Amino acid sequence: MNKLTKIPKIPPTTFGIDFTAPLFKVTVFVQEHFQGKCQELTSECRNIQERGFDNIRSIRVESGAWVGYEHHDFQGQQFVLEKGEYPHWDAYSGSLGYHVERMMSLRPICSAAHQSSRMVIYEKDNFLGRSVELCDDYPSLQAMGWCEKQVGSMHVQCGAFVCCEYPGYRGQQYVMECDKNSGDYPHWKDWGSHCQTSQIQSIRRIQH
Amino acid sequence: MNKLTKIPKIPPTTFGIDFTAPLFKVTVFVQEHFQGKCQELTSECRNIQERGFDNIRSIRVESGAWVGYEHHDFQGQQFVLEKGEYPHWDAYSGSLGYHVERMMSLRPICSAAHQSSRMVIYEKDNFLGRSVELCDDYPSLQAMGWCEKQVGSMHVQCGAFVCCEYPGYRGQQYVMECDKNSGDYPHWKDWGSHCQTSQIQSIRRIQH
Repeated sequence: MNKLTKIPKIPPTTFGIDFTAPLFKVTVFVQEHFQGKCQELTSECRNIQERGFDNIRSIRVESGAWVGYEHHDFQGQQFVLEKGEYPHWDAYSGSLGYHVERMMSLRPICSAAHQSSRMVIYEKDNFLGRSVELCDDYPSLQAMGWCEKQVGSMHVQCGAFVCCEYPGYRGQQYVMECDKNSGDYPHWKDWGSHCQTSQIQSIRRIQH
Repeated sequence: MNKLTKIPKIPPTTFGIDFTAPLFKVTVFVQEHFQGKCQELTSECRNIQERGFDNIRSIRVESGAWVGYEHHDFQGQQFVLEKGEYPHWDAYSGSLGYHVERMMSLRPICSAAHQSSRMVIYEKDNFLGRSVELCDDYPSLQAMGWCEKQVGSMHVQCGAFVCCEYPGYRGQQYVMECDKNSGDYPHWKDWGSHCQTSQIQSIRRIQH
């Protein structure tokens, strides 16, 4: 019996990881359940329509961590995609009340790195008020001692995180990265073009 | 700045946790957004209709980890509920294709304990084939080295876990506990009355 631990990494020979494979690779399909026209991507795609797709309806992530967007040019709702299979929109949407069923652009999350991920959340915007440093996964911020269901601002020191509207990593998803805007997110309007509120109830690191 | 770490626990005085509060407490509401008739629960409820509710449409978890069920007597789809606010069905459903919008029973997850949680997953049913011991959170089992998107059987040695159909803790949820059936889940039919397949792509510990 082997033990899956995050640090140190599992020896690739034990589990069959192929280190000659591209660092980032995803296959997108125009139909659900991996049917119809498909394309392999190993770098960002700003507009899937320019590649002859009207939409993406299923996804197989083969390596790396990715983020998909509702609109082209990385705008609108965000969908974190880690290695595995997503046969339809519900599989990657994160249980949204607003059923958009659209993914028009996607890109690798280059700063995803589990070992050293670290961020600070602040009670108020512009990095003011009470603050807490996070370096783990928190399915319920309230259970971990953060008294409110809102976060005012954030700074990512290292790595990448996904912040979620509801506990258990559900609801709207916001990707936060150290290599975007120097890791500074001073106001909830900086979390993404789709963000409507400062509500965040769970946060976790994004895996390679 | 304080550091949120899981081990050791955060001093309660720092973060305002009230240790005189009940270990398990949830408030359920008949309407969305915490409106209408409500009731506090500190122990299991086998049938919410016996308490005059036609359904539960929003939930505030005040302490402990809970699991809600689609049907009475803890049957049907499962919804893990950790501390925080769930204003409507989408907030706790886990992005299901099948929109049931029903919660008829719920109970505390008594074996949820983060520090020592441990389970083994097996490739085939009846604890056969390749096996791996898990003692952490795994948003993508495939990224961590488990080559398939299925799990054949499981044994929970300590604590409680939620196993999810898709990566990133999405899709159908199956609660696995050390104090149910001695922690043995020899076949996917043992994972819950709603389980239709052996597909599991993410697993995490359940928090107090």
